[in-house]
Formats: sequence, C-alpha cells, structure tokens
Amino acid sequence: MNVNMFKIIKDLFPICRSITGPGIKKSLKYIENIIPEFKRVKIKSGTKVFDWTVPKEWTINDAYIFDFKNKKKFADFKKLNLHVVNFSTPINKIVNKMELFKNLYTLPDQPKLVPYVTSYYKKNWGFCVSENDKKKINRGNKFKVYINSSFKNGYLDLSHAIFKGKKNKEIFFSTYLCHPSMANNELSGPALITKVAKYIKSIKNREYSYRLVILPETIGSISYIHKFRKNLKKNIICGFNLSCVGDEREYSHISSKYGNTLSDIALKSALIGKKKIKYYSFLERGSDERQYCSPGVNLPVSGFSRSKYGAYKEYHTNADNLKLVTQKGLEQSFDVIKSIIDGFEKCFIPKSKIVCEPNLGSRNLYHTISHKKKYKSQNLKLDLISYSDGKMNIFEISEKTKIPLDTIINEYLILKKFNILDKI
Amino acid sequence: MNVNMFKIIKDLFPICRSITGPGIKKSLKYIENIIPEFKRVKIKSGTKVFDWTVPKEWTINDAYIFDFKNKKKFADFKKLNLHVVNFSTPINKIVNKMELFKNLYTLPDQPKLVPYVTSYYKKNWGFCVSENDKKKINRGNKFKVYINSSFKNGYLDLSHAIFKGKKNKEIFFSTYLCHPSMANNELSGPALITKVAKYIKSIKNREYSYRLVILPETIGSISYIHKFRKNLKKNIICGFNLSCVGDEREYSHISSKYGNTLSDIALKSALIGKKKIKYYSFLERGSDERQYCSPGVNLPVSGFSRSKYGAYKEYHTNADNLKLVTQKGLEQSFDVIKSIIDGFEKCFIPKSKIVCEPNLGSRNLYHTISHKKKYKSQNLKLDLISYSDGKMNIFEISEKTKIPLDTIINEYLILKKFNILDKI
Amino acid sequence: MNVNMFKIIKDLFPICRSITGPGIKKSLKYIENIIPEFKRVKIKSGTKVFDWTVPKEWTINDAYIFDFKNKKKFADFKKLNLHVVNFSTPINKIVNKMELFKNLYTLPDQPKLVPYVTSYYKKNWGFCVSENDKKKINRGNKFKVYINSSFKNGYLDLSHAIFKGKKNKEIFFSTYLCHPSMANNELSGPALITKVAKYIKSIKNREYSYRLVILPETIGSISYIHKFRKNLKKNIICGFNLSCVGDEREYSHISSKYGNTLSDIALKSALIGKKKIKYYSFLERGSDERQYCSPGVNLPVSGFSRSKYGAYKEYHTNADNLKLVTQKGLEQSFDVIKSIIDGFEKCFIPKSKIVCEPNLGSRNLYHTISHKKKYKSQNLKLDLISYSDGKMNIFEISEKTKIPLDTIINEYLILKKFNILDKI
Repeated sequence: MNVNMFKIIKDLFPICRSITGPGIKKSLKYIENIIPEFKRVKIKSGTKVFDWTVPKEWTINDAYIFDFKNKKKFADFKKLNLHVVNFSTPINKIVNKMELFKNLYTLPDQPKLVPYVTSYYKKNWGFCVSENDKKKINRGNKFKVYINSSFKNGYLDLSHAIFKGKKNKEIFFSTYLCHPSMANNELSGPALITKVAKYIKSIKNREYSYRLVILPETIGSISYIHKFRKNLKKNIICGFNLSCVGDEREYSHISSKYGNTLSDIALKSALIGKKKIKYYSFLERGSDERQYCSPGVNLPVSGFSRSKYGAYKEYHTNADNLKLVTQKGLEQSFDVIKSIIDGFEKCFIPKSKIVCEPNLGSRNLYHTISHKKKYKSQNLKLDLISYSDGKMNIFEISEKTKIPLDTIINEYLILKKFNILDKI
Repeated sequence: MNVNMFKIIKDLFPICRSITGPGIKKSLKYIENIIPEFKRVKIKSGTKVFDWTVPKEWTINDAYIFDFKNKKKFADFKKLNLHVVNFSTPINKIVNKMELFKNLYTLPDQPKLVPYVTSYYKKNWGFCVSENDKKKINRGNKFKVYINSSFKNGYLDLSHAIFKGKKNKEIFFSTYLCHPSMANNELSGPALITKVAKYIKSIKNREYSYRLVILPETIGSISYIHKFRKNLKKNIICGFNLSCVGDEREYSHISSKYGNTLSDIALKSALIGKKKIKYYSFLERGSDERQYCSPGVNLPVSGFSRSKYGAYKEYHTNADNLKLVTQKGLEQSFDVIKSIIDGFEKCFIPKSKIVCEPNLGSRNLYHTISHKKKYKSQNLKLDLISYSDGKMNIFEISEKTKIPLDTIINEYLILKKFNILDKI
Repeated sequence: MNVNMFKIIKDLFPICRSITGPGIKKSLKYIENIIPEFKRVKIKSGTKVFDWTVPKEWTINDAYIFDFKNKKKFADFKKLNLHVVNFSTPINKIVNKMELFKNLYTLPDQPKLVPYVTSYYKKNWGFCVSENDKKKINRGNKFKVYINSSFKNGYLDLSHAIFKGKKNKEIFFSTYLCHPSMANNELSGPALITKVAKYIKSIKNREYSYRLVILPETIGSISYIHKFRKNLKKNIICGFNLSCVGDEREYSHISSKYGNTLSDIALKSALIGKKKIKYYSFLERGSDERQYCSPGVNLPVSGFSRSKYGAYKEYHTNADNLKLVTQKGLEQSFDVIKSIIDGFEKCFIPKSKIVCEPNLGSRNLYHTISHKKKYKSQNLKLDLISYSDGKMNIFEISEKTKIPLDTIINEYLILKKFNILDKI
C-alpha cells in the first residue's frame, strides 16, 4: 500500500486540533492506523516538564459572535475553526464594541484573511476575523460573544515510531500536529513523516535506527525531550524538524545551532541542484528545532521546509489551505528525505577497493577514444571514486563535488556493482 | 569624582613631551594624581632592552630659525613645539639655504600644516614648518639655527596600574604619552585609560585582574615587556593598544597577529551596530601592538582606534588639535571598552539553568498571545539563552547572534534576575 | 652548462611519441644525456599495475589515406604525426566513405585544426584531419586506409632522478612525455623539469631530497606508484604535476584533493603578485594529479600550469606548436618552481633571534627620521620578522603577508646576514 500524502492532508484538514484534546488525539489515531508502529505516548496534565507544565485537555464545541443590531452570527467556529482563538476559555457574555475589539484579532496588512491566533499559556479568549469583516461590523454596539469550550485533566498526546537497525545510532524526524484547519503548516509535516515511516519500513536489513515523532509544537517536544532525553542524546546522530513541506515554491534549510552537524551537511547535499534554495541561520528558527537545539539538549537537528513558516504570505491564515499544498510538492519533499535516508543506508562512507584510478574504459564506463571533449557523467564517477578514500561521508562528498546526493548515490550503486566501490 | 577626559587632554596639550625627559614625567604625574594606583616604573638610561638601548633624557628649552635678511625669527618652538624635530641635538650655527633645507621638514601635499617629525635613534637636528612658510623663506640666504636642548643620563619613565581581581588572569590596556602638542594622537589614549582605570576601580569583587600601562611608544613597550615579560605572558588573556580614540568619525579595529585572540572577538562584538567600522589587518599595524605581538612575546593584543593613526588627514601635524577630539567621541570610545570589561565581569560564559527553552511568557518576558508578528527584543532573549550552553563566551555569542555586546549584557542581567541564566 | 628549455622542445618536437615504443625511449634518452641522474625504469608489457595492465610497445612507421578518385594521399603521418590516431592497430584496406568517416576525427568548432586523438586501451584505428579537409574529401567514394604500425612485448619506459638532501623528506615533481608533436602539452613539462633538475643539482648541502619523474601519462604514473608506493607515501611532503608550462598567458594552480597540502600553500605563495592567476579546484583536474591524489595514494600533489590543459584553444591540436611556447614563458615557469625550492632550502621555517622588534634603524635597514610617509620595503622586513615566530613556514608567511615568495626569501637572506632571522 502506497501512502497518499495529499489524501492524508485532505482527510485531516477539517479537524479542529489544538495542543491537547480530541482533535489531536483523533488526528494521531488516523496516522497510527496507516503506520501501526506509531505508538501513543501520554503525559498527564499538570506534569512538570522542565520549566513548563503540561496543560489540561481543551475541548471546543462551538463559538460565534452575535450582532444584536444586524441579528446575525459571524466569526462562526462551525464555518471556520480559525475564528476562535485556539485554547480560548469559555465565555457567554454581552459586550460592547470596545470590549469586543480588545479580543478581536485581524491582519490589517492582509485585510481579506483570517489569522490563526493561540493563547496556550495564559487564560484568555478571543475571535479572529478578516480586517474587512471587522470594518463591516464596526457599526454594531452590542454583541454576544459565545465560546463553548472546556478544560479537563487528562493527557497531552503524542505518537512516535522507532525502527531498529543494525546500529543503535538513530536518524530522527520530528513534526507537529496541533494546528487546526491549515494545510502547509502543519498537515504537510505529518503527511510527509507518514510516507517516510512507510519507506523506512520497506528497507530490508536497515543499517541505522530511525525515530519518528508527531507531537504538539513546543510543549510536545519539551515533554518528549523530558521523557526520553537520555536516549535521544545517546543515539541521535542526525535529525530534522519537518515543517511546511507541502508547497512547490522553494526549499528551505534552517541551520542547526552551530551549523556543523551531520544534519546540516546531509540536508545541504540533498538540496544540491534544486531550484530556489534558501538557507536560514539558526537565528531565524521558529519551530521545534528551538527545543532540540536548546541548552542541555543540543541535538544535531536542522529544520527542513519548503516555503518556511513565517516566510510565505498564507502562513498562519485561512489561506494556508488545500490549494497551497500539492501532491508534487509533497513528493519532492519526500525525495529530499529519501535521498538522505539512502545516503545513510547505502553508502554512508564509501571506499574505493582499488589503488589509483580504476580502468573504467575496460568496463565500458568510460570513453576509450580520448578526444578533446567533456564527458560529464564519466567525470561524476571519477570524482566520486577520488573522494572515496574513507575520510568523507557521502554527504560531504556530494557537497564537495557539487553532485546532487541522489545522483551520487546512483553512481555509487553502479560502481559497487562493478566491484570498484564499497562502504566502510 | 568623575573623570573628565576632555579636560585631561586640554590640560596636557601644551606640554612638549618626548620619549624621555621632563615632558613625559610631568604628564604621567598629572594622571597619577587622578588615579594613584598608577605607579611609576623607571628604567635607567643605557639599559639594554632586547635589541634596543634606553636613551638619555632629553630636555628642550628653546629653538628657532633666525632669518638675517628679514631680521625675523620663525619656526619658533615657543609658539609651537612641533617646529623642532623631537629629540634634536643642540645647535647654534649660521647656515646657508642649502644646509637649512636639508634639515627642514614640510608636507608638500598639505602645504598649510606643520608636520611632526622625530629622530630618536640617530643623532640629528631639524625644524618643521608648513610648505607655504618654507616657500616664503626661500629668498633668505643666511640663517641662524638655534636649538637649546640637552641630553643627560637619567631614566625612561612609564606608569602602570594593576587592579587585582579574583582571578589572576589579566585584561591589559596600553597607551602612550610621548607625543608633544597633538590631541587625538596621542592624548586621547591616556585620557581614555584614565577613565577606564576609574571604572575598573569602581567594580566591586572584580572577577578578573586588570593591567593598565602608559608609556612612551616603541621603546616604552619594549622596556615594559623586557621587565615584565614572564608576568605578561603568564597572565594576559586579552589586551588592547588604545590609540587615537578621541574623534567621532569611525571605529577601527586593528587585528592581532593571527586575528583569533579573545581581544579580536571581544572588540568585534563591542563594535556590532556601530556606524562606520573599519577592520585593519595586522599588516596595517603601527603602534605598540607591534611589540606586544612580536616573536617571543605574542600577547593576545589588538588595537582599538577611532580614526586610526595614519588614516586621517590631521595625523602627525599641528591640525591634530583640540578641535579634532570631542567629549562625545571620547565617551563613545569609553563605552566600547566598558562593554568589554562588563562582558568579562558580568557574564563571561553564560549558562542556562533550565533544560529546553524557559517559559518566558509565564514571567511576562514573552507575548502570551501568539500572533503572526515579530517580537524583536523577545527574540534577543531566546537567542542569548539558546547559545548559553557553556560552550561560547559572551563575545562569541554577541558575534554569532549579531546582538551588540552592551545589549546582550543587559539581556543577560534581566535573565539572571529571573534565575534563567547564570555564569559558569 | 645552462639548460636551454626552448631548445629541448625544438629538438624533441618532431618525434612521434606514445605511451610506449621508440618515440618515448628516444625522448627520455635525450634528457638523460643532459641530466645523467635521470635513470630509466622499465616495466614489462603485461605487468598488472593495480587495476591496469602495462600495454605492449607500439611502433608506427607510416600511415595515410589514399583517395582513389583524386589519386591523392592525405592525412599523411609523415607530414604530421597527429594524423594517425595514437596507438592505432595496423590496417591496409579499401573502405567506402561511411566506413572511413567512422574512423575519421575532426574538430567541427575549430575547422582548420587537426585534433590529437588516442585509443590506448581498446584496439582501434583512425585518422585525424581538419574539418575543412574532411569537407573537401567528401566527394571521393573509395579510399585506401593504410597504417603501418605494430605491437610487441617489451617495456613501458619512464625516467626518474632522486637527489638526496640532509632530510629524507622529498619534494616531488612529475611530468609526462607521451604526446607526439605538440609543444605546450607536453614538451614544456619535460623541458622545465630538466632545468629544475639542473638547479637542484647546483644546490650545495641540500636540506631536502628531491624526486623528479618523467613518464607516460596515466599508465606511467600508475606504474610508478605501483612500484614505489611505500617510498612515495613515506617521504613526499610536497609535490607538483608540471604540465603545459610554456606559454605566457596566465598561471594556473590545480588544487590538490583537499586543497590544504604544503603543495597548495607553496604554489599559492609562489604566484603572489603574478598577473592573471587561475585557481582550479581538484574537480577540474585532468593530468597525473588524478593518480597521485587517488584513494590509497593521497600524496600532497598539486598541479602547476600556465594555460591549463583543456583551457586554451590550441590544446590537443596541431596548433599547440613551437609558436605557442616561448623562452620567456618557460623561464617564468622555472622562476615559480625555483622560488618554491628556495623556500624549502633557504628558510622553511624562519625564526627571529630577537625578542620584540629589532632596531632596524641602527643597522641602516630602516629610516631613522620618522616622518608621515610609507616606507614599503621596510614594512616587508617588519612583516616578515613579525611572523617569524616559528609557527608558520615561509609559504604561509608569504600568503599571510601577501609578499611574493621570491621577495620574502630575499628579505630573509638580508635579515639573516644581519643576524636577525634564522631558520629552525
């Protein structure tokens, strides 16, 4: 069974998720049904996780504003779940315009769009509407604000899958699933990680172990680190935070804290030859790489995105919808991750079995007539062989030779068949 | 009592200093009166200091040229002490134009200005006039050249102050005080070092020790190294040659010999965000960093200047006067040095006391409503915390995050108050 | 007796060489006559050298195409030895146009020139003509192709010279001599290496040992490595492949595999101040540095060229002739290599004998009057002294100070005479 990433996004899109509560539970369950190796981890409400406290479960049933003058509902949660500030406390109250406006969020610079707003760590309530709609309601002076939400003790839910290989050393992928109806940020990440899990499952005799985790952003990764820190620090040699991976506009690499980990070089090599690559320094981070690279944790984790969170106009609005993500964009993102996995599995450190250059011509891998021309793909082979002296890994060789990672892996496989290269 | 740097310069300006003799003695005394911790070090004339010999004391009483045709004195030392070549031997002789001109120095490219010329290490005499004035005297044919100077055995004088801290490791500041009436080069350095001394005195429970020295250029630093080399090499971890620090035009950083010392990174971070920063390689050195970085010495010393010696048009002329240096320029220079001292004292290697990011929102240090905007000063805190894992010092963190050193120290102090950061 | 490099090229030009056979034997003999230290090394045909087999000796006596229609010979080997594909099997056969054209090589982009084509490692035959000449013969329809060549068991010949010094550590130079009548590529290399050998011979009390080798390209260097690998890996600290060193157009540096060997820094420093320097990455390699830097070998070898193979329009054509190389170009190339040898011999790691700056003025090496001007050559001395603290070699100092290698060696020699510098 193949994984249809776009279908996952479409199926999960309508659910109103938050960092806790039924939305994320149902969404995790959906993925666990596809990849049963994803196992639920539950952290009790109220648990201290480092400097934070696991919040209660939030349930939302309904929310709207009623304009008494127009006798009309608007900011109706049932029509668009972004209309309610995520994690809002319940309210049912008549308010005047001033009080309403204090709790009404818009994007004046993008007047047609409804913003996504949260208040997880301070009790608050609010509504989100477009700036244009806010202007229309301007005339009313009495409003009912109604939010039917509740908090209860329960659990923070997350799900992780560990695929063992010959080595205990782990390649790590993390993504989050706490956002309500938005597609690129962040249903694309869970869709991609599902396909990545499927691919890892399909690898026979895995060399490396793999750890994949889907969790609510920030509090989820902090809770996960709190529970598994020793294991993570012991085993992870390369990791990626996957976020906003569903559009086709560009490829983004958010550097790890010191920019010099295996994850940085691996991702850099996997992006060689792509059109429109953006490198972001760690100072421009914003997702769970914040936690994975934090003091006391310091895991070798980079961020991989297409159009990065905060860097595309639909970000955190109702325009981040099913038109923004595409099957092609998702597949391209999968190809990047696949090539990194292949790099680890097929030829992490390649080594030539032959001293000096091999005679490629005798194997019909090289022109036998030497004429004044360039033979591009033949040079690729010679470049790969030349750096296969056991000192550089395949990512470093790709970066050094500027040969795209997937191309160089293919060249390796040919040369391995001819008994010229092997891995250490 | 506050230190008024501009007043120091004004008071010392009229004195005719040289590398030895009453001028520098009187000038050092003036500063010792303000900061009694500055103690005199005296090296006997004739002492061998490495490849050099300490010269005799030079006294100058009067000097001029008398034009017999015009019956007029000119190049009158009493009107401008730059008129006589510094360290001139005595002379009283009738000379013709040719002989006079051999000993007359001008600046043809800056025809209105009188140059500053010295001949310390070879017996010589001479006068300095403006090119315009030289052209006027062209018609005379007999001149009396009169220099009433003398040399006697005595001492080379310098003054140093050592402020002990908990650690023996020293931060070192050096400047020189051998120039006659010029302001930026070099009364600004002694004025600044006086204020720096005052500031260091004011620090309670100093972490580091500080060594400050005021000396005649070249022979002074060589003599100082000769006398204290073992101590200097054992204790100095970071040092600066302070020269030409009184104007407002730019900030200059003269790299240490290999460009990779604590002094380089400290100064680089202290200049972040300043307008007009100039980085000079060690090849463009010219002051006492020459000696501090020489073979057999190799101290971690950079140069700090505003408009660097040799790089501003008034340099080594009578135009380097009280109009060039300003109170504001001096204070700005002090702020740079102060921030470096603060970096050492307050948070040399900061370390987070919390695993993962702290919950800044719960301490009202972060927005609790997450909306699609940038919160600049909050990012500064998170950036500082993120790199506070005990691997980088505050200068490196400032350089890495591009947060100006004084800003990042302030952020540190706030986060320390909240028990989030501490120093190692 | 001086070595006249241009004469060597002129004398050797007419000979039709190949990787084996009488042409290369005769050419090596010519050089061995000039430098008797060059000793012949012979590897038997059929010997396995790593992944390759030493080929038989190839002898060519005559070759041409006869056009029956025009009753005219063309592509006549006796007029231009490039006309026959080098290492062609014998043939004597009537062929039609189609069959002829399959074995006829031209350069459509350079229609006046005859290309140089080889088929060493696969039995084949062919002719090379200009595209213009090919067009003319287009009308004929029956042709006799005649190649009077033969293969026999014998030897692959190469020649090497080892000049012992006090240290066993070797500086290595390699060039090749397998090309028929072409001048820059590759009679310039053997001409240069001959003069280099002469120069090394002339050095009394050599500090370092030197290994020079002239061989057929690729199979020759592979055979040489096969025979001497242990010695090469043990002793060579710096090496250069010399190729295309006879024109005046530019200087080229082909980086070693990792770009960080003594050969890279030495060559970089020797090229400081030259007009038109081109740096090529190892990915643009193409000559025997391929073998010297290959897995299992990894010698510290860079490539030195003027207009690099493949990068000038006459390359591998009959236009690479005696008009392209000049005595001046050859001498300039020699000067580069000479300065590197001098660097090793005269002052590999210079060290100041004096703590602090020496008093250059007292030795008349520095102005004694300090005036507002720049004294360029005096700064060179101070820069060299400053970095002579035993941490950097002369090549690194040259690169750091941007002082051309030959200039800095001259400055060293002056300062050594004054007992200021010595070598470690």
